[in-house]
Amino acid sequence: MPKLEQGLVQVYTGNGKGKTSAAFGLALRAMGRGLKVYVVQFIKGGFDYGELYIVDKLPNLKLKAFGRGKFVTEKPPRKEDVELAQEALVLAEQVVKNGEYDIVILDEVNVALNLKLINLDEVLELIKNKPKNVELVLTGRYALKEIIEAADLVTEMKEVKHPFNKGYQARKGIEY
Amino acid sequence: MPKLEQGLVQVYTGNGKGKTSAAFGLALRAMGRGLKVYVVQFIKGGFDYGELYIVDKLPNLKLKAFGRGKFVTEKPPRKEDVELAQEALVLAEQVVKNGEYDIVILDEVNVALNLKLINLDEVLELIKNKPKNVELVLTGRYALKEIIEAADLVTEMKEVKHPFNKGYQARKGIEY
Repeated sequence: MPKLEQGLVQVYTGNGKGKTSAAFGLALRAMGRGLKVYVVQFIKGGFDYGELYIVDKLPNLKLKAFGRGKFVTEKPPRKEDVELAQEALVLAEQVVKNGEYDIVILDEVNVALNLKLINLDEVLELIKNKPKNVELVLTGRYALKEIIEAADLVTEMKEVKHPFNKGYQARKGIEY
Repeated sequence: MPKLEQGLVQVYTGNGKGKTSAAFGLALRAMGRGLKVYVVQFIKGGFDYGELYIVDKLPNLKLKAFGRGKFVTEKPPRKEDVELAQEALVLAEQVVKNGEYDIVILDEVNVALNLKLINLDEVLELIKNKPKNVELVLTGRYALKEIIEAADLVTEMKEVKHPFNKGYQARKGIEY
């Protein structure tokens, strides 16, 4: 099994489209090289996403989504949302430490951090202690400055033009 | 076969990482919904990319890359590069017009336009005349302002932090 010589910590953040997609596209490229990818989705569980319907057909990709199918908006957050996000983080820690997967994607973890569903120090520890050959990818808007500081490679997806305010709705197969 | 009700024109540009990856991630999601995707790659043919090794395993994805395996740097460009890019554009026009594919990705077309390998008016015509239910995705840095004006949804991938200047090299399975 080929392994990465040097795994980095990547962040995709910003208010624009393409953060989760970029992570999945990266996963696709990595799978083409025989690398193994694990996607842990924070908050997203229970939602109906197009990518969920192709995961089983992909070699070397595993995905687990945590969430109750609703956007987390309450402040302070519901106990249930906190528990699910923490469950996701525990799994992420196990998968990263284990080292079986070359790429670990923590999808929407930035949002979970921003909503204080999970503890920043714990995520910083996860980053600090990751095995050298594991690539860690954190997505979601509102990346905290401490996360950006801890990362090697940070890309901001910036919305330049968006049609939704012209009355378009999110479309099956494109936005979800 | 499910079809998009309203296909838009999306652009992923900017100096940051994740433009092509975002397009491939979008393709993955769309395939999960049973949509058909065609990727026309400008300039990239002949290079060794990880995604090329998984294309055959994916349902409903077709990819054709045009290029001679070298970066195009000469100004004015070589006749060969111009011919390959124009061949790619002719194919793109056929695929978009045909309407069999729900999503058509013109990967690195912005770079081809910027290098004047292809004609801006021809690409604007392609955008203008696309069937309503086809989603057109244009990637590559240096998107021209006319392309941004013609698009519905534009995202700029902005480099916030990049480790390559610390001596990292592009890595197999991640950067290519």
